[in-house]
Amino acid sequence: MKDFFFKKVKKYILLKEVFSICKNPKTINSDKKISGVNNLVEANENEITFFNNLNYEKQAQKCRASACIVTSKTEKYLNKNVIPIISSNPLIDFYKVVSLFYPSSSLDSEEVNPQTNISKFKKRNISVGKNCLIDKTAVIGENTIIGNNVIIKSNVHIGRNCKIGSNIIIENSLLGDNIIIKSGTLIGQTGFGFSFENNKRIKFPHIGRVIIENNVQIGSFCTIDRGSLSDTVIGEFSSVDNQVQIAHNVKIGNFCMIAAQSGIAGSTTVGNNVQIGGQAGISGHLIIGNNVKIGGKSGVVDHIKDGQVVMGYPARSIRDFIKDKK
Amino acid sequence: MKDFFFKKVKKYILLKEVFSICKNPKTINSDKKISGVNNLVEANENEITFFNNLNYEKQAQKCRASACIVTSKTEKYLNKNVIPIISSNPLIDFYKVVSLFYPSSSLDSEEVNPQTNISKFKKRNISVGKNCLIDKTAVIGENTIIGNNVIIKSNVHIGRNCKIGSNIIIENSLLGDNIIIKSGTLIGQTGFGFSFENNKRIKFPHIGRVIIENNVQIGSFCTIDRGSLSDTVIGEFSSVDNQVQIAHNVKIGNFCMIAAQSGIAGSTTVGNNVQIGGQAGISGHLIIGNNVKIGGKSGVVDHIKDGQVVMGYPARSIRDFIKDKK
Amino acid sequence: MKDFFFKKVKKYILLKEVFSICKNPKTINSDKKISGVNNLVEANENEITFFNNLNYEKQAQKCRASACIVTSKTEKYLNKNVIPIISSNPLIDFYKVVSLFYPSSSLDSEEVNPQTNISKFKKRNISVGKNCLIDKTAVIGENTIIGNNVIIKSNVHIGRNCKIGSNIIIENSLLGDNIIIKSGTLIGQTGFGFSFENNKRIKFPHIGRVIIENNVQIGSFCTIDRGSLSDTVIGEFSSVDNQVQIAHNVKIGNFCMIAAQSGIAGSTTVGNNVQIGGQAGISGHLIIGNNVKIGGKSGVVDHIKDGQVVMGYPARSIRDFIKDKK
Repeated sequence: MKDFFFKKVKKYILLKEVFSICKNPKTINSDKKISGVNNLVEANENEITFFNNLNYEKQAQKCRASACIVTSKTEKYLNKNVIPIISSNPLIDFYKVVSLFYPSSSLDSEEVNPQTNISKFKKRNISVGKNCLIDKTAVIGENTIIGNNVIIKSNVHIGRNCKIGSNIIIENSLLGDNIIIKSGTLIGQTGFGFSFENNKRIKFPHIGRVIIENNVQIGSFCTIDRGSLSDTVIGEFSSVDNQVQIAHNVKIGNFCMIAAQSGIAGSTTVGNNVQIGGQAGISGHLIIGNNVKIGGKSGVVDHIKDGQVVMGYPARSIRDFIKDKK
Repeated sequence: MKDFFFKKVKKYILLKEVFSICKNPKTINSDKKISGVNNLVEANENEITFFNNLNYEKQAQKCRASACIVTSKTEKYLNKNVIPIISSNPLIDFYKVVSLFYPSSSLDSEEVNPQTNISKFKKRNISVGKNCLIDKTAVIGENTIIGNNVIIKSNVHIGRNCKIGSNIIIENSLLGDNIIIKSGTLIGQTGFGFSFENNKRIKFPHIGRVIIENNVQIGSFCTIDRGSLSDTVIGEFSSVDNQVQIAHNVKIGNFCMIAAQSGIAGSTTVGNNVQIGGQAGISGHLIIGNNVKIGGKSGVVDHIKDGQVVMGYPARSIRDFIKDKK
Repeated sequence: MKDFFFKKVKKYILLKEVFSICKNPKTINSDKKISGVNNLVEANENEITFFNNLNYEKQAQKCRASACIVTSKTEKYLNKNVIPIISSNPLIDFYKVVSLFYPSSSLDSEEVNPQTNISKFKKRNISVGKNCLIDKTAVIGENTIIGNNVIIKSNVHIGRNCKIGSNIIIENSLLGDNIIIKSGTLIGQTGFGFSFENNKRIKFPHIGRVIIENNVQIGSFCTIDRGSLSDTVIGEFSSVDNQVQIAHNVKIGNFCMIAAQSGIAGSTTVGNNVQIGGQAGISGHLIIGNNVKIGGKSGVVDHIKDGQVVMGYPARSIRDFIKDKK
């Protein structure tokens, strides 16, 4: 996670601080240094993670983190080399730990410190429309065109030969080359996640980015939320039509085609060369294989293997769908 | 309805004017004063209402208005203490009466008389981004942050500690404290309703507001239309994801969670602690109980009792849904 | 097609140039002049078209174009009076021909040369809000109101007594009189179409317009894409609610009502007086008759005859739908 845009405000915290946040009765008064946070799969030594969902039992057994916030029920599945820290609500407690490192990552800051040196752009053949607010930290590649009323907040890199329409907001995102973003789309905001504690809304931190690879096309009025602990990714040559919702941590492969008004819920992974029809919906935390075709208006609630053609709600193989409807 | 933002331009009209609008052959030449308009349930003495839908038969029997515009078919169900006024189109005729009191309530005025005294905001720690248009009449609470390119039209109260994103338009709305509105959302416009008369579009008046209670979170690209004769309400601690449509007069309870791309049609009431999955749709004029769970992509076409878990289209109990799909 | 806004940069091309683009082994070294491009149905003498889909077999037999790009499989169905030009990918090759006449029609230009002479508007009682960018070429009728932050690009005619909300973008569109467009809607962009060739995205040219006839009402956050080779049309008195997607080349008749979050895919034709419920979807290239009712959330995948009432996914007669669900 070293490449994330969000800057850590602390180099490390002490393990006993985590025990204290988790209000853990078996507190270990450890001065062990925890240098970062990560998800269950990607966490390495000296990092802390959490494990509260038995769907991730296998990943917990292979966990390489130094410590892991667990429940009294999930503790036993955790790799024995990892220090378990029992919590009644691992998610909220983990997010409190994340906030120690990244205090403002659960919010969408509206602050922009606008570029003023427009001549710098002209020299590199970058065209910027009227009434734009482009943050001083933004990196923009040669020959890129930016429309009118565009807001580019902090932590944005845009590559070369891109075409950014009008009325677009981008933040915490990394865009490659030859990308088309049509007018009115929002990229890189926080996702929907939150919990309540003592009648206070705890918004999930979002330290991830949106990564849009080369040659992607995105339609209008799409919402592509940035990742919470990993990145939201749209792979090379993939194409997204208008009014599509892509939630936090979603990974979409290369050469995919996503028709209008579709939605993909958080943390789902879509393979390469997948076609998704209009108004289709895919639930969260699923794995969709390569070369899959999902019919328009389908509701996908389970994993799909490579090469499957599915339709309906819940989506099933197209043969079964047609048989059922006869 | 005394609290509505829309100002009545007349203190009263005479009952005979209503008879004249309804082109009623049995005109009563009455100088009785009608001091306001209201819906069938909330109308009180000296107010006028309408009744053209037999689903509201019970409410008509209890009606407390002084007069009611009815059809020749619905007249007999009306409370005998209410003066009936027969019309061939009660809705259009009622809306003509409404327009006498509130002439511009069927339109979305784009007029803004911008605030200029920004120092007033700074004193109260209100932050306003660039290129905003904030009407002079707007009331904004302490510590509230407003993003860029925001338009706040007339009749808007926003509470304390709110976070209003960018590219947002708000009108005729009352927002509480600690509210998050994400970028690109439209709150308080007129709803979709209209009729045609002699090849002219008659837009329904919308004298209601949008009321968003404390601690609500609303996503991006939502459309939350204001009420026609009552208010559109989103209750405390409720959370709405991106691209959600909430039509006029909808009431949503407390601690509800509404996932992305869902839609709720006009005049439906949703209880407390209701969870609505992504891309679900709820028809108009329904009552959804407390603690209901509605699966993603469900189509709800009937009332739902407290505690039910439903799925599918038309939505039915989840047990039946799963059985059917096997 | 003489009325299209896009200007041809060439008066004609030579037939041998088309053969060269199609890399056709049987090249005819013809200096015949081709003066324009058109779709299979509307193409006339001296124009060129393409035919790659056997659904259009009947239209191919009646084709009146001078030449037609075909596949080795579709060639035999083409009217014998038309010169066939075989291609391994008629669509891409045809679009290369279109690009010779209309080089920039596959892109959405963000360029606006803003009007400065606002007094001209005032004289004709046209009201324009703040921060608008209105291109010098825009034609706007008397008594029309335009909100704030509106972008009107090139090739736009707006009639009289229209109400254009705020945050709207219009390009390549022809709007009649008495039209209401609610805030946040995008009209006249290119559609979703594209192909890949040698790892390069070839966007389909869109030389068509959006034509919105008199007395139409369009909601917020709609995307109405302009036509590729014909126009996208919304007929008189039709009404479209919020968050609706209307793809390129769609034709909607008069007095239709399209509820929120519906979508109509490319090249579908909808008759007069059709009602489409919320969240319904209609596939591309279909013909929906007059007086049809499509239930909310239906998925229409086939043509519908006049007067039908359909529901479900795939949409079928409402009687069958209700029977199935019992």
